[in-house]
Amino acid sequence: MTVTETPESTCDVLIIGAGPAGLMTAAWMARSGIKTRIVDKRGTKIFTGQADGLQCRSLEIFDSFGFADRAWKEANHMLEICMWNPGADGQIRRSDRVPDTPPSISRFTECVLQQGRIERFFLDHMKEHSDIEVERGVLPMSLDVDEAQVEDEDAYPITVKLRHLTDEEAMPKQVKLASEGVTNGDGLYRSNLSPDDTDDLIRKNREKGGTEEVLKAKYVVGCDGAHSWTRRQLGFEMQGEATDFIWGVLDIIPITDFPDIRQRCIIHSADQGTLMVIPRERGLVRLYIQLKEIVPDAASGRADRSKITPDIIFKAAQKILSPYQLRYNYCDWWTAYQIGQRVSPSFSLHNRIFLAGDAVHTHSPKAGQGMNVSMADGYNLGWKLALTVQKLSATRTSLLSTYSPERRAIANQLIAFDHQFSRLFTGRPARDIADKEGVSMADLRAAFDQNALFTSGLSVTYEPSALISIPHDALPAVEAPPSTPHANHPPPKLIPPAPRSPLATRLPIGTRIPSYKVVNQASALPLHLHALLPSAGPSPPFRILLFAGNMVAPAQSERVRAFCRALESGLLRTFTPPNVALNTSAAPLQVLTIHSAPREDVELLQHFPAILHPFDEQRGWDYERVWCDAPSYHEGWDRAYEGLGIDGERGAVVVVRPDQVVAWVGDVEEAVAVEEGGGLRAFLGGVLRVW
Amino acid sequence: MTVTETPESTCDVLIIGAGPAGLMTAAWMARSGIKTRIVDKRGTKIFTGQADGLQCRSLEIFDSFGFADRAWKEANHMLEICMWNPGADGQIRRSDRVPDTPPSISRFTECVLQQGRIERFFLDHMKEHSDIEVERGVLPMSLDVDEAQVEDEDAYPITVKLRHLTDEEAMPKQVKLASEGVTNGDGLYRSNLSPDDTDDLIRKNREKGGTEEVLKAKYVVGCDGAHSWTRRQLGFEMQGEATDFIWGVLDIIPITDFPDIRQRCIIHSADQGTLMVIPRERGLVRLYIQLKEIVPDAASGRADRSKITPDIIFKAAQKILSPYQLRYNYCDWWTAYQIGQRVSPSFSLHNRIFLAGDAVHTHSPKAGQGMNVSMADGYNLGWKLALTVQKLSATRTSLLSTYSPERRAIANQLIAFDHQFSRLFTGRPARDIADKEGVSMADLRAAFDQNALFTSGLSVTYEPSALISIPHDALPAVEAPPSTPHANHPPPKLIPPAPRSPLATRLPIGTRIPSYKVVNQASALPLHLHALLPSAGPSPPFRILLFAGNMVAPAQSERVRAFCRALESGLLRTFTPPNVALNTSAAPLQVLTIHSAPREDVELLQHFPAILHPFDEQRGWDYERVWCDAPSYHEGWDRAYEGLGIDGERGAVVVVRPDQVVAWVGDVEEAVAVEEGGGLRAFLGGVLRVW
Repeated sequence: MTVTETPESTCDVLIIGAGPAGLMTAAWMARSGIKTRIVDKRGTKIFTGQADGLQCRSLEIFDSFGFADRAWKEANHMLEICMWNPGADGQIRRSDRVPDTPPSISRFTECVLQQGRIERFFLDHMKEHSDIEVERGVLPMSLDVDEAQVEDEDAYPITVKLRHLTDEEAMPKQVKLASEGVTNGDGLYRSNLSPDDTDDLIRKNREKGGTEEVLKAKYVVGCDGAHSWTRRQLGFEMQGEATDFIWGVLDIIPITDFPDIRQRCIIHSADQGTLMVIPRERGLVRLYIQLKEIVPDAASGRADRSKITPDIIFKAAQKILSPYQLRYNYCDWWTAYQIGQRVSPSFSLHNRIFLAGDAVHTHSPKAGQGMNVSMADGYNLGWKLALTVQKLSATRTSLLSTYSPERRAIANQLIAFDHQFSRLFTGRPARDIADKEGVSMADLRAAFDQNALFTSGLSVTYEPSALISIPHDALPAVEAPPSTPHANHPPPKLIPPAPRSPLATRLPIGTRIPSYKVVNQASALPLHLHALLPSAGPSPPFRILLFAGNMVAPAQSERVRAFCRALESGLLRTFTPPNVALNTSAAPLQVLTIHSAPREDVELLQHFPAILHPFDEQRGWDYERVWCDAPSYHEGWDRAYEGLGIDGERGAVVVVRPDQVVAWVGDVEEAVAVEEGGGLRAFLGGVLRVW
Repeated sequence: MTVTETPESTCDVLIIGAGPAGLMTAAWMARSGIKTRIVDKRGTKIFTGQADGLQCRSLEIFDSFGFADRAWKEANHMLEICMWNPGADGQIRRSDRVPDTPPSISRFTECVLQQGRIERFFLDHMKEHSDIEVERGVLPMSLDVDEAQVEDEDAYPITVKLRHLTDEEAMPKQVKLASEGVTNGDGLYRSNLSPDDTDDLIRKNREKGGTEEVLKAKYVVGCDGAHSWTRRQLGFEMQGEATDFIWGVLDIIPITDFPDIRQRCIIHSADQGTLMVIPRERGLVRLYIQLKEIVPDAASGRADRSKITPDIIFKAAQKILSPYQLRYNYCDWWTAYQIGQRVSPSFSLHNRIFLAGDAVHTHSPKAGQGMNVSMADGYNLGWKLALTVQKLSATRTSLLSTYSPERRAIANQLIAFDHQFSRLFTGRPARDIADKEGVSMADLRAAFDQNALFTSGLSVTYEPSALISIPHDALPAVEAPPSTPHANHPPPKLIPPAPRSPLATRLPIGTRIPSYKVVNQASALPLHLHALLPSAGPSPPFRILLFAGNMVAPAQSERVRAFCRALESGLLRTFTPPNVALNTSAAPLQVLTIHSAPREDVELLQHFPAILHPFDEQRGWDYERVWCDAPSYHEGWDRAYEGLGIDGERGAVVVVRPDQVVAWVGDVEEAVAVEEGGGLRAFLGGVLRVW
């Protein structure tokens, strides 16, 4: 070994792993100007296969960063699920059709797009908004925490040794084979049936020279996959178990007379197992097939990988689809995996090191959840990290300490869901109504209906905490009765069961706020509420949504004016750094107004106090802060007040976190109540730094 | 002078001028793989100012090339027009609000975006689809046509000498000033108040050495602006006249208490003239102001340019807006122009040289028409050129000879419109109802209502020709009565007065087909009909839209099957080159099916003959050719049959040109009639090459 001087540097945040969870975390860092490094041991990003399901909430999150349109344009949209079941003659036939995404729950529907493209959108986004770049072929060799320093806001208590690999070392075996002309050489190289090579790489690298550096970080985020090296450094053991079920996955351009090949299908054959069809972009179709003949070894619990080939997977699919014909000339990717459901006991250590994505939860991929839940981890964590590094949080841990409980609860729900879903898939179909062991179509359909909200990612509900405030008079957390369907607008949106304020009876607290189109007071532009809540820097803002009610009524107008006076002298002043102008896009606390008076009956400058549309000497008034729940000329009327259950006369105040999650609901008087113990002041005091 | 060997080369199409008309023509060339050169004497593209209005039809055309989303995302959408008029006290007040774009006529609404960005989209599009690049700083020195060769399909009868300018010569004066730190030095450098510098450049270049080349072209398109050098080579004199009215234009970020500054406004002051407000992207607002104090010289008819400054324009605006305050810290661009309305007597010579855009029509810019009509010229011409160069047209001139009459008629309509519109703007407001000389608000409002379809670009109707076939039993060209509004879908679309077939009573022949959402039979994806009619290569296709009616009814199914048999052995075979597979995306004649049976009652492979969804050995069946007029899960039901006035049982056959213009309407029997003298065979025989 040669001894060379090891360079040493610092960063605020080190992200280990540049998959979806790591890139999502990095997206917040990029928007917030946080000094960030993101490393990945692989020398290249992935180009085919891997995860592909994009759920509604993920698309909404992409939209908050400004690139949902790219995904939406390239993805294959899945509209319908077709259920196929054996008839009395044992032959499969279509038994049901259901919408893949329930109508009206989101602006988006479920769609599928190859993981590599999604990573590309994140990389482009980082490039547009920051100088953060993924450093590929960089392997973490050791991680040490100086526990004496973890409570010191200014310290860099984590030391990570990084090794820069050679191209040869960093190239995944499959990519190497592909570059040598071997197509789909080993579809299992990233499967959970294959051993991880990280330790091997580290061991090999210890024994020889190479470029190494020492990095001191304030925070580390481990997004390094199911075999997470970071998690293992923290000593967290995944909890849960593997099953005996082995599934194969094949991405092909099918040539077939099966009529529903461009639909998402669940095909239960009489005795050949179950097949799931996922139509994809560019004419591709993904097939998920249970491999009944591959049985894990009793001793090791692992299947013999050498027996699994694309041909075995394909032949199993052909049998299930019979009498329909299936063949292909092009295979894009294949793999196989053993279903297992596991969760890490904690997602963080000292509120300094965090774990996200597959590093802390693994499950079966068939419901298209993996990439989405992983990204949602990063989305939950990123803004909390950014505000903390910027010293805009109430204390160093007031935001960060909510990450592990919030996301671990979701991971546990995911596992419970996956248990149920996998059983329905893996079980044989019921022969008749008396066949209690088989899975009935009715059970399957009910599971789809009940789980549609869950799989969409829209029912995620965070429990009460410093970040989620439940009013004392909250309505109970049962599903809200749908309001009467209205002839002129879409059916009421499904809402998850969660506590609600009597002031917003259809707005679950702790969930993301649903989006409705509102109309700009100054320009008549209709825009989705979500478009007004971007995941933007320089500091991820908490937003006070002032549902101002009917501003034409003198009494209501006076209530709102009183609120605005208190807002200007109190709340905004308290939570905005002295060098930042109140209620501008640079402030960590911002106000957005949505009123319910007829748009033509009010004037922006006359009816709305200046603080609601702040003035700037270079730009004039801010015309994009006051909106109206009113009919638009070309895009109908979404009736936001009705949808949220807010009174059109008196309105309400809703506070959403930077991740669009509803955190506080009250009326204008409560919002500016001066007592320390109550109101919005008390809530924000537990969240944001007081200036 | 030194004598050097002048390089000589050939190309199929030479486009002179890389503004909107030239770039649109080039877009078709890029998609069709035509060997094309596009040159511009300016050394740089424009970055600020110039045209900005984007009408619905232009956005639809952008969408057909795949980049409307970029424009839509960046542009400022104009939703409402506010009319301001003096009250009895002489002070201006808002007297009316109307939608800027009538509801339901298009997927898009009028919006504004700087010309430079639009040119950028075209440049990116060319780069993505071809290796055509704009050659800047290239000046045409001479143009010669060998008349003996003009009828020879394979000849290159046009010789153009091109000179490659130095950077210094090619740099527009304003850009040069800007690069030297002088902002907005001369806002008039491209105004029609300034002399053109082309002749000057040519003269200077004749006298000295430089890089020159000789280019032999099959076709030349002159898109070189109002002072068109190309037009002057053809000896065409613009016809029409200038007025005495001088208008100033100012792009600023305004600081004001005028309430409608983010709306399109027409403000008639009592005696200070008229102001038009156009809100733009990035907080900018464009002001159009009549400059009453600047009067053209009686002898020359030209105004003294030296008197026109941004300050004069701004002060005029302030007076009109009084008592509202207006100031600014940032000016992006300014110019002034003298209203003139002129059209060229012809738009082409020998069907070899074509003129488009400002080269053949000039008018006032206030209705946001210029860039749009110019692009529409290029859009009309491009596919005709491509099919002709590819020898897929019936004869060399069968397509090309329609360009000049089709577009010249539109230019004349534009001038007539502009006369009327300018008068309404320039006249003083009526004092009261008895004031016959003044312009009443009612007149102005009526003009807006009547002209909304025209300015949107959606009422463009081409006259009967080889390319537009009117059935013998056509309904007269009067405005169709609106069908009864339906509770479950939007109000009926406005349709322009044009002849219609009794088989499609609300589908004007000679206009662009309106778009309705239809649902994919195989995947349930809802998509706009226009998305199925892209401006795509390799050869711009004529499309047979088979409105197949109710395919569940045996008699109708048999009608359609008979049609398909004849289609396969007859029409498609006749008009598809032997080396191209029938009805594939490479064919110049393609079929798209939209049926009206309930989607779940029919199966793609069972109910629709194979020719309607052709099979490919690598890709399997084509799942994107058969669509249904049916409710979608998430986006409602557009009711295309009802909207187009097509019978839901028996359907109709509609042929659209590559530019989405309705060219032929008939029933399935007429469509495949064998007689040479009638039916679709006869129509297509006059258009496409017979193989």
